[in-house]
Amino acid sequence: MTLPSAKAIESITQGLEPPSELWRSRAQARLDTLTKPLGSLGQLEDLAAHVVSIRQERSLEKIKKGVYVFAADHGITAEGVSAYPREVTYQMVLNFLAEGAAINVLVKLHHVELRVIDVGVDADFEDVAGLLRHKVCRGTRNMLHEDAMTDDELTRALSVGINMADDAFRAGQTMIAIGEMGIGNTTSASAITCTLTGAAPAEATGRGTGVNPEAHARKRAIVEVIVAKHFAKSSTDPSPLDILRCVGGLEIAAMTGMVLAAARHKLVIIVDGFISTAAAALATAIAPTVRGYMIAGHQSEEPGHRLLLSHLKLTPLLTLDMRLGEGTGAVLAMPIVESAVALYTQMATFASAGVSGAAQ
Amino acid sequence: MTLPSAKAIESITQGLEPPSELWRSRAQARLDTLTKPLGSLGQLEDLAAHVVSIRQERSLEKIKKGVYVFAADHGITAEGVSAYPREVTYQMVLNFLAEGAAINVLVKLHHVELRVIDVGVDADFEDVAGLLRHKVCRGTRNMLHEDAMTDDELTRALSVGINMADDAFRAGQTMIAIGEMGIGNTTSASAITCTLTGAAPAEATGRGTGVNPEAHARKRAIVEVIVAKHFAKSSTDPSPLDILRCVGGLEIAAMTGMVLAAARHKLVIIVDGFISTAAAALATAIAPTVRGYMIAGHQSEEPGHRLLLSHLKLTPLLTLDMRLGEGTGAVLAMPIVESAVALYTQMATFASAGVSGAAQ
Repeated sequence: MTLPSAKAIESITQGLEPPSELWRSRAQARLDTLTKPLGSLGQLEDLAAHVVSIRQERSLEKIKKGVYVFAADHGITAEGVSAYPREVTYQMVLNFLAEGAAINVLVKLHHVELRVIDVGVDADFEDVAGLLRHKVCRGTRNMLHEDAMTDDELTRALSVGINMADDAFRAGQTMIAIGEMGIGNTTSASAITCTLTGAAPAEATGRGTGVNPEAHARKRAIVEVIVAKHFAKSSTDPSPLDILRCVGGLEIAAMTGMVLAAARHKLVIIVDGFISTAAAALATAIAPTVRGYMIAGHQSEEPGHRLLLSHLKLTPLLTLDMRLGEGTGAVLAMPIVESAVALYTQMATFASAGVSGAAQ
Repeated sequence: MTLPSAKAIESITQGLEPPSELWRSRAQARLDTLTKPLGSLGQLEDLAAHVVSIRQERSLEKIKKGVYVFAADHGITAEGVSAYPREVTYQMVLNFLAEGAAINVLVKLHHVELRVIDVGVDADFEDVAGLLRHKVCRGTRNMLHEDAMTDDELTRALSVGINMADDAFRAGQTMIAIGEMGIGNTTSASAITCTLTGAAPAEATGRGTGVNPEAHARKRAIVEVIVAKHFAKSSTDPSPLDILRCVGGLEIAAMTGMVLAAARHKLVIIVDGFISTAAAALATAIAPTVRGYMIAGHQSEEPGHRLLLSHLKLTPLLTLDMRLGEGTGAVLAMPIVESAVALYTQMATFASAGVSGAAQ
């Protein structure tokens, strides 16, 4: 029997095409005609060719950017895994809507459309304006004792993300960042990282928002118990959807759905920090083709993030020791990607500018 | 007897003040009240505090950006040290003025004022519009055989940069990038690097615009001869002005002058690649206080650049394997610095947003 969650995903991933290698080669050939020493724009050249392989000639002149911040609560917060109380998820969503958070400042400065989505916050938002209301339930269950979600909840959370990708496409966005807010969600991301990469909980579990050393030790132990509880007994590797359902989060499931559907729409996907990359890694485990649509915005301070980036073979554009989430690292990387594409589309060629070429 | 070049510099460096440590502390204290986990913006927090230590409260709300591209030719090109012919300096200046070069694309995208300054190009520009004409002479002498400049030429080149800093200040710019164009100038930068840091020519001499292995070997040998010829006999360390005069370039001297004078005007200085950092290192050797006004935009692929950044104890914001010059790496870093300052000035505090703080 195919579970509803698998059915929801199947319709998205069927017929997913990789970015065009033909267009990547064409872009590389054009880059070599521009007025600069061969290869001298370094990674910007790879970035430009990557974007062209995704977008081909569509809307390269003007990139429209969006960032999607999915918020949800986590049952595991009952175990004291975070430095901040659970209600901070709710409070920070209000802060996003009041434009006071870090992500608000960055989207304003860099002209990025921001969507804030309640996919599972443990609070009633009542009549607050600007929130996209797609609450599946008021947070996950405590994965130390039971599965974080039912398959029905997982299916609905995935669909929230899938719908957001459709919205981004309809809004004409060409480059999206996926971000999140959810007190307790680095614990989920650590459990996902261990299960996907085989890393030990001690390696993959960081200090999150900044727990003290004792709480950090407890968090590591909890991740160890969680991974063993859910996956040690099975004789086969758990499926990505099983991982999501047992130790994931509603926002992580929504991000996973969004990544899969964004690839179908041939959007450039900028992955953010540890949690966002956990979703990207799950999406890649479901459909390896989506990996070709991703750019890693930055490498965060969380140790598990490095493991996931390495697992995905993604090279981060920035390494600024950030560990905030909200899509901040991804949005901060957007001007670099835009720069790469603008250089590609706007620079003069040696021939057009009448500049002499290199000897030999 | 004080040489004219030393006199020109003395008037700039007298009374130069370091950035304010008091304001840096104030900024750090404010950063800790903003709605984010403590320290979670990583290097962006250090950057914001750094800019505040320079600017205090002046014009933080709206940063006005400029990039200064100094162009000049080099006598050493007679030795075949570059992959490109000497006339490319002239041709690329025309490309800057026609807005076809990489730096043009980046300044347009990131809203940066661009100034192109002829400080020593071996060509007559006649009636071309938009060029700042401050030609000292038509390129340096061949430093393999004689000093690159006379003290008079050095003095005039330094003054060009000093005047540009005054112009930037009068134009209301608060953050400037220093860039360059000059076929042959990585050879100068390598010689400067060896002399300032004690590095061996083999370590400090890269492929520049991309010479082939044989030309690279010849370039290294030439740098070795140049450094020995000019500095091996002296019993004391050569002064920074001697280094500039003997193995520098007119554009490197102008950048050195601009860095010194920009610090006097308390501008934030974004250093670009290898050549730009060579000028920044010379400016720091002249007046160590100026180091506090600098931010390293990126780390280029040139091996000598890493040596200079390490010598200056500057951590680059970007590492994208660029090696183009023109100020491109510095301008690419500007949105990151702007982001840091915007986060500092615009984010809500825990108190103002009603967000709960961390436990303990």
